[in-house]
Amino acid sequence: MPPTRDPISTYQTIRQQSLALTVRLSAEDCCVQSMPDASPSKWHLGHTTWFFETFVLESREPDFKPFHPAFRVLFNSYYNAVGDKHPRPRRGLLTRPGLDEVLAYRADVDRRICQQLTTSPDDPALLALIELGQHHEQQHQELLLTDIKHLLSCNPLFPAYANAMPSTETTPALTWLDFPGGLSEIGHVGNRFCYDNELPRHCVYLEPYQLASRLISNGEYAEFITAGGYADPEYWLAEGWDWRIAEQREHPLYWHRHGNGWLEFTLTGLNPLVAAQPVVHVSLYEADAYARWAGARLPSEAEWENAAAQMQADPLAGHFANSQAFHPRPARPDAMAQLFGDAWEWTQSSYSAYPGFAIAPGAIGEYNGKFMINQYVLRGGSCATPLGHIRASYRNFFPAASCWQFSGIRLAR
Amino acid sequence: MPPTRDPISTYQTIRQQSLALTVRLSAEDCCVQSMPDASPSKWHLGHTTWFFETFVLESREPDFKPFHPAFRVLFNSYYNAVGDKHPRPRRGLLTRPGLDEVLAYRADVDRRICQQLTTSPDDPALLALIELGQHHEQQHQELLLTDIKHLLSCNPLFPAYANAMPSTETTPALTWLDFPGGLSEIGHVGNRFCYDNELPRHCVYLEPYQLASRLISNGEYAEFITAGGYADPEYWLAEGWDWRIAEQREHPLYWHRHGNGWLEFTLTGLNPLVAAQPVVHVSLYEADAYARWAGARLPSEAEWENAAAQMQADPLAGHFANSQAFHPRPARPDAMAQLFGDAWEWTQSSYSAYPGFAIAPGAIGEYNGKFMINQYVLRGGSCATPLGHIRASYRNFFPAASCWQFSGIRLAR
Amino acid sequence: MPPTRDPISTYQTIRQQSLALTVRLSAEDCCVQSMPDASPSKWHLGHTTWFFETFVLESREPDFKPFHPAFRVLFNSYYNAVGDKHPRPRRGLLTRPGLDEVLAYRADVDRRICQQLTTSPDDPALLALIELGQHHEQQHQELLLTDIKHLLSCNPLFPAYANAMPSTETTPALTWLDFPGGLSEIGHVGNRFCYDNELPRHCVYLEPYQLASRLISNGEYAEFITAGGYADPEYWLAEGWDWRIAEQREHPLYWHRHGNGWLEFTLTGLNPLVAAQPVVHVSLYEADAYARWAGARLPSEAEWENAAAQMQADPLAGHFANSQAFHPRPARPDAMAQLFGDAWEWTQSSYSAYPGFAIAPGAIGEYNGKFMINQYVLRGGSCATPLGHIRASYRNFFPAASCWQFSGIRLAR
Amino acid sequence: MPPTRDPISTYQTIRQQSLALTVRLSAEDCCVQSMPDASPSKWHLGHTTWFFETFVLESREPDFKPFHPAFRVLFNSYYNAVGDKHPRPRRGLLTRPGLDEVLAYRADVDRRICQQLTTSPDDPALLALIELGQHHEQQHQELLLTDIKHLLSCNPLFPAYANAMPSTETTPALTWLDFPGGLSEIGHVGNRFCYDNELPRHCVYLEPYQLASRLISNGEYAEFITAGGYADPEYWLAEGWDWRIAEQREHPLYWHRHGNGWLEFTLTGLNPLVAAQPVVHVSLYEADAYARWAGARLPSEAEWENAAAQMQADPLAGHFANSQAFHPRPARPDAMAQLFGDAWEWTQSSYSAYPGFAIAPGAIGEYNGKFMINQYVLRGGSCATPLGHIRASYRNFFPAASCWQFSGIRLAR
Repeated sequence: MPPTRDPISTYQTIRQQSLALTVRLSAEDCCVQSMPDASPSKWHLGHTTWFFETFVLESREPDFKPFHPAFRVLFNSYYNAVGDKHPRPRRGLLTRPGLDEVLAYRADVDRRICQQLTTSPDDPALLALIELGQHHEQQHQELLLTDIKHLLSCNPLFPAYANAMPSTETTPALTWLDFPGGLSEIGHVGNRFCYDNELPRHCVYLEPYQLASRLISNGEYAEFITAGGYADPEYWLAEGWDWRIAEQREHPLYWHRHGNGWLEFTLTGLNPLVAAQPVVHVSLYEADAYARWAGARLPSEAEWENAAAQMQADPLAGHFANSQAFHPRPARPDAMAQLFGDAWEWTQSSYSAYPGFAIAPGAIGEYNGKFMINQYVLRGGSCATPLGHIRASYRNFFPAASCWQFSGIRLAR
Repeated sequence: MPPTRDPISTYQTIRQQSLALTVRLSAEDCCVQSMPDASPSKWHLGHTTWFFETFVLESREPDFKPFHPAFRVLFNSYYNAVGDKHPRPRRGLLTRPGLDEVLAYRADVDRRICQQLTTSPDDPALLALIELGQHHEQQHQELLLTDIKHLLSCNPLFPAYANAMPSTETTPALTWLDFPGGLSEIGHVGNRFCYDNELPRHCVYLEPYQLASRLISNGEYAEFITAGGYADPEYWLAEGWDWRIAEQREHPLYWHRHGNGWLEFTLTGLNPLVAAQPVVHVSLYEADAYARWAGARLPSEAEWENAAAQMQADPLAGHFANSQAFHPRPARPDAMAQLFGDAWEWTQSSYSAYPGFAIAPGAIGEYNGKFMINQYVLRGGSCATPLGHIRASYRNFFPAASCWQFSGIRLAR
Repeated sequence: MPPTRDPISTYQTIRQQSLALTVRLSAEDCCVQSMPDASPSKWHLGHTTWFFETFVLESREPDFKPFHPAFRVLFNSYYNAVGDKHPRPRRGLLTRPGLDEVLAYRADVDRRICQQLTTSPDDPALLALIELGQHHEQQHQELLLTDIKHLLSCNPLFPAYANAMPSTETTPALTWLDFPGGLSEIGHVGNRFCYDNELPRHCVYLEPYQLASRLISNGEYAEFITAGGYADPEYWLAEGWDWRIAEQREHPLYWHRHGNGWLEFTLTGLNPLVAAQPVVHVSLYEADAYARWAGARLPSEAEWENAAAQMQADPLAGHFANSQAFHPRPARPDAMAQLFGDAWEWTQSSYSAYPGFAIAPGAIGEYNGKFMINQYVLRGGSCATPLGHIRASYRNFFPAASCWQFSGIRLAR
Repeated sequence: MPPTRDPISTYQTIRQQSLALTVRLSAEDCCVQSMPDASPSKWHLGHTTWFFETFVLESREPDFKPFHPAFRVLFNSYYNAVGDKHPRPRRGLLTRPGLDEVLAYRADVDRRICQQLTTSPDDPALLALIELGQHHEQQHQELLLTDIKHLLSCNPLFPAYANAMPSTETTPALTWLDFPGGLSEIGHVGNRFCYDNELPRHCVYLEPYQLASRLISNGEYAEFITAGGYADPEYWLAEGWDWRIAEQREHPLYWHRHGNGWLEFTLTGLNPLVAAQPVVHVSLYEADAYARWAGARLPSEAEWENAAAQMQADPLAGHFANSQAFHPRPARPDAMAQLFGDAWEWTQSSYSAYPGFAIAPGAIGEYNGKFMINQYVLRGGSCATPLGHIRASYRNFFPAASCWQFSGIRLAR
C-alpha cells in the first residue's frame, strides 16, 4: 500500500487499481466463471464493494439502505454470520446485474465511504475496518488476475490480457545460503497492518538449514520432465501421484507441448517457454516431487520467514503487479533473489493456527481461521500481488492441488 | 416459414428473426451457459452461421476463405465429418469472439449467401441446402429462447425477458375425441420441406383410441401435486421415480412454492401461476405419472399424427413465437385445441427410424439419425417455435428427463 | 418348464435347479456383488424364496409367521407396495444371513409351499401365483449365471465356473431369409403361461424384410474391430459413441487382447476366442454399430416374433442352460439357426406397452410395466436360460449399455 | 509386543493373534469390502503374509518360489517398487483365493520364516525386517477390527462380533493438568523398535499449555448435539461444515437416534449409548467443532507427546485389544486417564516429516513418508490396538474426514 497519510486518497487509489485491471476486459470477459475455484471479474468488483458496504456502512450510516437488497446475498463470499450466500460455483450465471450496474454500485459505495472518512477522519475503528477492506481488495486484485488468466486459457484462441515485456534470457546459477537455526521468533511484529493469522508472534526452534538463492526456473523444471519425473511414483507423495493420474498431468498447468519444445500460456498470450523465468502454476504435489528429484525439500514457513525477515527491505523490492509484466521475471544476481514478488513459494507447512491464535468475534472472525485445514502455506507474493500488500510474515494458503495461482518453487535442505 | 417466392428475402427474414430474439439481451446474457444441455445465445448465432458457411459456401465459393479459421471448430455442434468440435459444456467459456464479432460473422456470411442466391437462383442443390439451413436456424431460434429462459431462471433476481401479455383466466372443460384407428399412414407427404426423420411415409395399424381435447392445465397439474402425486411411486416409471428422488423434484421445473400457492418463472418474470394455462416444462417421467394418476396414458406418435393430420389447416393456427407471448396460452373452446403451438406434447414413442429410413451420406446425414436412441418423440410445436416451422409429421425428440423445453401433456386412452 | 402334470414335483424341480447352479460355488462366491447391476448368488436364492413367501404364504397361511422378519426388507427387490427394500448396490454387504441360513430359508418355504399345494391342489389362484413364482425363479437362474460370470471376470485369477465342452470350429455361411410382411399379429396366444407384457396380442403392419440365418460370429465381429469399427464415429449412435469413449471400450466386455489374437473369458475360464461361436456380451450400441458397418440393421421385435412364430417348434430346440455348456455354440446348418437359446438377440425396439396393456393391481403389477422406459427388447433366450422358460412372444429388456447378459446380434434388412 | 527373548515364539504369537481375531467370523464375513477405505479380513491376512514373503523370503531363500505367483499383485497394498497392485476398491471382489487357501498361505510362509529364524537366529537385518513385519501385522490387526466393524454396521441385522462386557456407568469430572512448555524434545528415544516417522528426535518450543484429564465422553458429546452443535457453522472449520452437509452428518458415525435417546453400534452389537464411555468414531472436523464449542482446542502432537512421555509407564497400561472389550471404557479416576488405549486422540497437527527425516531406499521407504500430506496425527492407541504395539512417540495418521477408526477427543487449551 502506498505510504500516504491521507486515508481518502489511499482508499481511492486502491479502489481505482481494481478498475484499472479490468479496462482491458469486455463485459463478457468480466461475467464468465471458468471453474468453481475462480470467480468472474465482475463478482470480484462487486464482492469487494459488498465488503465495505456490509462491514462499514451498514453499522455506521444512520439510515442505511443497501444499494440493492439482493446484493447482500449475491456478493457474500463465505460469511455465514452475514446470512445467505449465492452458491460459489454459480457466480458465473449472474449476467444481471450487468457490469455497468456493478460499476455504479462501486461508485455509490465509494462516495459513501469517503463521506464516512470525511465525517470521522480519526475514528480508529472506522480506519481499521477500511484498512482491512483495502487489504481485502488487494487480495481480490490478485485473484482477479489469476482467475481471468484461467478463463482466457480455456479459450482456444488464447487471447492476451496484456502486452509482453522484454525479458532477459539468462538466470544466475542456483547457490545455497546457510541459516544457523536455533530459537527464533516468527509472526508479525510492529504497528503496521497484518492479518490475524500472522499473530501472535511466537518462538520456534529451527535446525540449521539452507535455502536456494532463487526460484526454480522453467528450464530446470523442464529437465525434471525430460528425466521422467512425471512417470515415476518414487518422487511423488502418494496423494500427489493419484492426483497426477486422475488429472492426467504431464507438465505444469499452462504449458503446452509444441514439437520438441514447450509453449506457455501467460497473460500476454501463448508464447514460447522462457527457460530463465521461474516455473509457476505448479501444485504443491509438483513442487514436492521436483524437490525430491533434486535431492532437496521445500522449506517450512518458519524457515522461510526467518530468512526473509533478515533480508526484508522497506519498501520491499520485487516484481509485483504494478510492474505490468503480469508474469515472473528471471532472477537478478542477488545473494537471495525473488523472495518477494514474482511467484508465491510453496512451503511444506500445513496452514494452522499460531499458538494462542484467537478468532475474532462476528463475521470478521471468519476471515482466516476457519480455513486452517488441509491447506498449505505459500510465502512471498507474486507478479500479481499489488505493490505494498505483502510482508515477511504474510501467510497465503491454498490446497495442495491448486495451481492457478502464480505458485513456484524455492528449495531448502 | 413465410410463403414467399423470393429465396433471398426468405433467407433474410429468417436470419433477421434470430437477431430480433437477442435485442432484449446484453452481451453478458448472450455469453453465459447455464448447463451443458443449453448453449449461449451467441453460440446459437454463430453456429447457425457456421452451418451456412460450412455446408453452402465452403463447397461453392471458388476461393473460399473462412471468416475466421478457428470458427470451424468453435461453432461445430456435433458433426464428426466436419472435424473437431469445441466441447459442448465449454461453450460458455468463449468470451472471445465477442458478440460484436459474431454479429460481423453473421453479416459477412449473409452477404455471401445472398451472392450465391443471386448468382445461381435456380440451382436446386443450393436451394435445398439453404432451405435446410433455414429450418436449422429456426430450430435454434427455439433453443435460444428455452436456453435463455433457463439462464435467467438461475438468477435470483429472476429477470424478465419480455413483457407479460394479458391472458384469459379460464379454460374449457377437457373432453375426449374418438378416433377409429385401423390401418393408416404416417410420415411426411407432399413436396414441401421436411426432415429426413419424417420419411418414408408408411403404414401403421392403430387400435381405436381417444385424445383429450386440450393440454393439461396448470390447475389440473397442481391437483396431482396436492393429491400426493410426487410422493407415491405407484404412479411413476421406476426410472422416473429414481430421477425424482435424485433431483429432489416436487413440482415442474420453473414452479416455486409461495405460501399456499405457486409462482411460475416465465420469460416475463416470476409471476403467480395461471391455473388455466397449460402446464409446461415437465419431463416425460412427470407427464407419464400424471397420465397414470389421471387414469389415462400418453398418446403414441402415430396416434397423435393420425389425429393431427385430419385437423391440419394451412397455414397452421396456434400460439407460436411470433405472438411474442413466449408462454403457452389457455385453450380456446375448439373441439381439439392446442395441437400446434403452445406446448410440445410428450408421446410414449421412443424416437426411432421409420421402416426404410436411410441416413444421408456425409455430414448432413448426422443431422437426425444418430440420435435415435433413448429419446422420446414430442409433437406439435410450442410458443417458442417460429411460425411456419412445424407440420403434423414433425418429430421433435428429447431424453425423458428433459424439461427445459416447453413440453406439456395431452392425454390419450 | 418340463411338461409335467404334478405341480409339486414341477415346483421342486425348478427350485432344485437354482441350488444346482450354486454347487460349484463357495459361500464367498455366493456373497459378493461385483457391480450394482449384479446381485450375489445368495441374494438370488433368498429373493426367489421371498417371492413365494410374500406373494403366496403371507396371504394364505392362517398363522403366517415370516421365517425371519428382516428378510421381508433384505430380499425385496423393487416392490414398493411390499414396503422397504434393502438398497440394491448394498446387497453384497450382507455377509449375514450366511449361505447356510438362506438354504434353511429355502427349505422352510419349500415345505410350506408344498403344504399349500397339497391342501389346495386345484386352487387356480394358488397355481397361478406359484407358476408366476416359478418363472420368476427361472429368470433369476439366468441372472445368477450372468452375475457370477461378471464376478469371476473381475478376479485376476479368472476362475472357471464349469468345465469346457468341445465345440465345432466352423459356422455355416450367413444367408438371408425373406419375410413378406403385411398385417400380422404379435403377442402371446394360447393358454400357457406368459408375462403380462406379452399381452394383449395385437395387429402390427410390417414392411417386407429379411433376417439373417444365424447370429453374428466372433470371427465376423473381430473383422469389424480390425476394420476400425471402434475408431470411427460414423458407425455409432451418438450416445453409443459417447459410451464407448467414456467406458474406453475397444472390444466386447469379456474379450482380452492377447498378442495378435484374442482371449475370451467364459464360464469355463479364460480361453482362446472361438471364431465360429456367436459374439456375446455386446451392448445395443455395439450391436447397432456392427449392423451399420455391415450394411444392415437390427430387427424390430415384431419382425423377430413374426419370423420366430413361424418356426417355433414345441418343445423349443436350442442350447439352453440345461446343456451345461454355459456358452453359445456355433450355428448348425439350419435354414434359420439359433433363434432360441445361445444368445439373446438385441432388437431396435424400445420396450413399451402393447396397445391395451394393463398393469395388474398391487405389488404383482410392479413386475414389468414400470420398466417400460429407456430399455430395449431382446428376444430368443440364451445359453443361460432354463430350458422351457422361453417362447416366441417372450420379451426380455435391458438398457442399451448393458452387456453382462449373453446378448448377441442377428441382422435384418 | 510381549517382551520375550525368543524371536520365533514372538513371531508365532503375533501371527496367531491375527487368526484369533477371525475365529468369530465366517468366510463370507472375511471376504467382503464395505467401502474403499476398508479391506476384507481375508485381505489383511493375506497382505501381512505377503509382507513377510516379499520383504524377507524373496531375497533370502536361495530357490525362492512364491506360494502363488498371482499373490504378489493381489496382496500388494501400495508398494510401487514391488510392482503392480490389485486396485484397492476391488479387494472385496476376490472370492478366490478362498479363506482356506489364504490360511494355507499363512501357514506356509510362517513355516519358512521360522526356518529363516532357525538358520540365522542372530542376523540383525533379518531380525529387523521381521520386527518391522510384526509391527506391520499389528497395525493390520487393528484395521481388521475397524474394518469388520464397518462391514457389520452396514448390515441391517447389526450382528455382534463379540460379547459385551460390563462397564461402569460413571466417569470422573474432567479437570485440567498444567504443562510448563518451553524447549523440549519429541521423537523416539532408545533402542527399541520405532517407525521411521518417529525420527529423528528433535527440539520443539512449546508455550505453556493444559491438557484435559480424560477423553470427552459420549454424554458430553451428546450435550454438544443437543445444544445445536451440528446446526451452527460457527463451530466448524469451513471444510468440516461442507463435509457435514455433503455427508448429512448429524451425529457420530455409529450413533442411531432412538426415540429421545441414542443407540450405538459397537462390536458387541447395537446397544444403548453409554454416557460414561469416551465418544469414538468422530472425524477431525467433529473433534475440532466440539473443542471450539467447549471453549478449548485440540492439542498439538508435540504437546501430547511431551505430556505422555512424562507419564509413560513400561509396560503401558490401558484398554487395548487384548482386553477383549473391543470398545473404550469409562475413565478411571487417574490424574491423567486414558492416554494409552481406549481411543486414538486427534491432534491439530498435520502429519509431516520431522526435521532431518530421511526416507529409506527401496520399497520399505514407501512405508510412511509418501503419506505426509493432508493427513492429521492421532496419538495414544485404542481399544483395537494390540497390547505392546504403542508408545508415546507413536504417530498414527488419517485424513480429517476419517471416522471408522476408534478416534476420540482430548481437549487442550
